[in-house]
Amino acid sequence: MTNANRQITFAARPTTWVGEEHFALQTNTIPTPGNGEMLVRNLYMSVDPYMRGMMNTGPSYAAALEIGDVLSCRVVGQVVTSNNPDFVAGDFLFGMLRWEEYSIACGHEDLRKINPDLAPISWHLGVLGAPGLTAWVGMMELGQPKAGETVFVSAASGAVGQIAGQLARLHGARVVGSAGSDAKLAYVLDQCRYDAGFNYKSVSSFDAALAEHCPNGIDVYFDNVGGAMLDAVLLAANEFARLTECGMISQYNLDEPRGIHNLALFARKRLKMQGFIVRDHYHLLPQYLIDMAGWQKSGEVTYREDIAEGLEAAPSAFIRMLKGENFGKQVVQIATV
Amino acid sequence: MTNANRQITFAARPTTWVGEEHFALQTNTIPTPGNGEMLVRNLYMSVDPYMRGMMNTGPSYAAALEIGDVLSCRVVGQVVTSNNPDFVAGDFLFGMLRWEEYSIACGHEDLRKINPDLAPISWHLGVLGAPGLTAWVGMMELGQPKAGETVFVSAASGAVGQIAGQLARLHGARVVGSAGSDAKLAYVLDQCRYDAGFNYKSVSSFDAALAEHCPNGIDVYFDNVGGAMLDAVLLAANEFARLTECGMISQYNLDEPRGIHNLALFARKRLKMQGFIVRDHYHLLPQYLIDMAGWQKSGEVTYREDIAEGLEAAPSAFIRMLKGENFGKQVVQIATV
Repeated sequence: MTNANRQITFAARPTTWVGEEHFALQTNTIPTPGNGEMLVRNLYMSVDPYMRGMMNTGPSYAAALEIGDVLSCRVVGQVVTSNNPDFVAGDFLFGMLRWEEYSIACGHEDLRKINPDLAPISWHLGVLGAPGLTAWVGMMELGQPKAGETVFVSAASGAVGQIAGQLARLHGARVVGSAGSDAKLAYVLDQCRYDAGFNYKSVSSFDAALAEHCPNGIDVYFDNVGGAMLDAVLLAANEFARLTECGMISQYNLDEPRGIHNLALFARKRLKMQGFIVRDHYHLLPQYLIDMAGWQKSGEVTYREDIAEGLEAAPSAFIRMLKGENFGKQVVQIATV
Repeated sequence: MTNANRQITFAARPTTWVGEEHFALQTNTIPTPGNGEMLVRNLYMSVDPYMRGMMNTGPSYAAALEIGDVLSCRVVGQVVTSNNPDFVAGDFLFGMLRWEEYSIACGHEDLRKINPDLAPISWHLGVLGAPGLTAWVGMMELGQPKAGETVFVSAASGAVGQIAGQLARLHGARVVGSAGSDAKLAYVLDQCRYDAGFNYKSVSSFDAALAEHCPNGIDVYFDNVGGAMLDAVLLAANEFARLTECGMISQYNLDEPRGIHNLALFARKRLKMQGFIVRDHYHLLPQYLIDMAGWQKSGEVTYREDIAEGLEAAPSAFIRMLKGENFGKQVVQIATV
C-alpha cells in the first residue's frame, strides 16, 4: 500500500450536457484518521442522477458543488484503521463518502455496517440500498397499486425502475415499462417479468405505445424521466391515477426544460402527483431489507448491475448513466477486497 | 304567462376563444311535466368555467355538447306545477337544469329544496352551492393549510377564490391572492381580508410579485388559472407544498396549452399536486352549509356576486367570466320572483 490517494474533483460547471472535461483526477496522500474517525478503503461507489443537480448553482435538494471539490457519493468500503468504537478494521460498511480511493469517515455519513455474506456487497448501492428503498417508497407508499390496476414505469431497467416494477407485480398489478434498447426491454420482460413494455426509442409515438401496451389506461405512473413521456402519461391516465415523481432524467441536461402541456387534465381526471426524496424515508430501510432479502432468496425479484472498472472510469460511467447507456444499476468498482 | 319558453342553444363549436356566435337564442313552447316530473320557472342560472370544456370534443369531465343542444347549467328556480311528491308549487329549488326560462325536472338533477329566507336565493349558485363547496374541499381537504403557513390563491376575487382564501384565513394561514384589476384586488384585501395580494396584469413578473408578497415561500397553492402563474408558484413553493388543482382558466381557450417548465422541482421539493371535482364531494355539502351560514351570520366570510340581467345575457356573461371581466361570482338573473 503506497501513500497515494487518487480523487476525482469537480473541475468545471456544465450548463447543458455534462462531459469528462467537467471532472479532474488528482492524487493526494492518504489521510490519517483523527479521534473518533476511521480510514475507509473504498471498494464500490454509486453514480446517481441526483448528482447532476449538485453541479448546478441555485436551488437543489443536494448542496451545490464548488469547483475543486472532491465529489461525494454513496460508497461500500472496508475499514482500514478505526478510532470509532462501533467499527473495527476489516468491517464492511456503507456510507456517503467521496469519489476517491480512501476516505475519512467521521461518523456522520449515514454509516451502516454490512454483512458481506448476505449478498454481493455492491448491492448495498442498489437493490439493498437507496435505489431499492426509493422504488419501495415511490411505488408502495405513494403509488399504492391495487391488484389488477395498470402500473407504468419509465426507465424500467434502471437502478430504481427494475425494482419498482417488480414490487408492483408482487402486489398484483399489471406492470408495463419503457426502456431505451431492445436488450433492456428483453431484460424487463424476461427477467423482471413485466407484463408488457416498449423500447421508447423505436416507437413512432409515446401516445400510441401507451395505448397499445396499457389498453385499460394507467392507474399508477412511476416517473423517472419527465418530459414528453409525462405528457403522454397524463393523456393515458385513468381517473384517480397516482403519479410518483422520482426524477426527470430527460430534463437534467437541458438548458431549458421541455414544457408539459397536459396538466389541465388534473382536475377532470382527479390526478395526484407527488414528489419525494428517499432520505426522508430511511426509517423504512430495516423492514425493506428484510422483505427484499426474502424476495431475492425466493427468486421473486431479480437485480442487474452495470459495473465500471476503476476510479478513473467514474466520470464516464456517470455520463453514460445520464445518457441511458448503462444497462442496470450503474456502479464503479474502485478496488477489490 | 305566455306559452313561450326562450332557450339558448350551442350553435357552433369554438376552437380557441368562445364568442357569442357559438350560441343561438330560440323560442320554444313551455313543456308539460309528465308523471313524477315538475315544471320549474328558472330564476337564476350560473355560468362556470367547466362549461368551456363541454364545448370541446374529446375527453372532458362533463359530457361533450352536440350542436343544437340547449346548454345545461346550475339553476335556482321555483316550482310551477309538480307531479313529484317531494315538491309543491311555489317551492324554491336548486338543480342542474338548462339555459332556458322554464325547465322540466325529472328528479335526477341534483334537486335540492331551498329556504328563501336563509340568504339571497342566488347564493345557492355560489357561496352556498358548488363553488363554495369547491373552495372548501380544495382548501381544507386537499390544501390543509396550517396556522402560520402561506396560502396563495389565484383568481382570488372569483366565485371559488374569494371563498377559498377566506377559509384559509379562518384557519390561521397567511393568505395572498392575485386578481385581474385594482378594484378586484381592493375587494380581496379589504372585504375578504387577504393579508396581501397583487394585480397580475400590472406586475412586471410573477416571480417578483410572489417573492414580494410571499417572502416565506408558498405552502399551499389553490390554482384556478394554470399557465405561467403555476410555473411561478412551482419556483416559489416551499418543500412539502400542496398544490390544489381546481381549474386552469387561462388555458381553456387556447389552441395549444402553454407548457409548464418547472415540474422537475417536484422531487426535490417533495411537492404534491392534486386535482378534484366537487361532485365527488357533495356528501360534505350539508355540514358545509351549516358552517358557512354561521360564518356569514358572524360576518367572518363575505361574498360578492356579479349579476347579469336576462337569459339573453347569458352567453356574454359566460364569455366575460372566461375573460376575467366579471367581478365576483357570475350569475344570470332570468326572472324575478
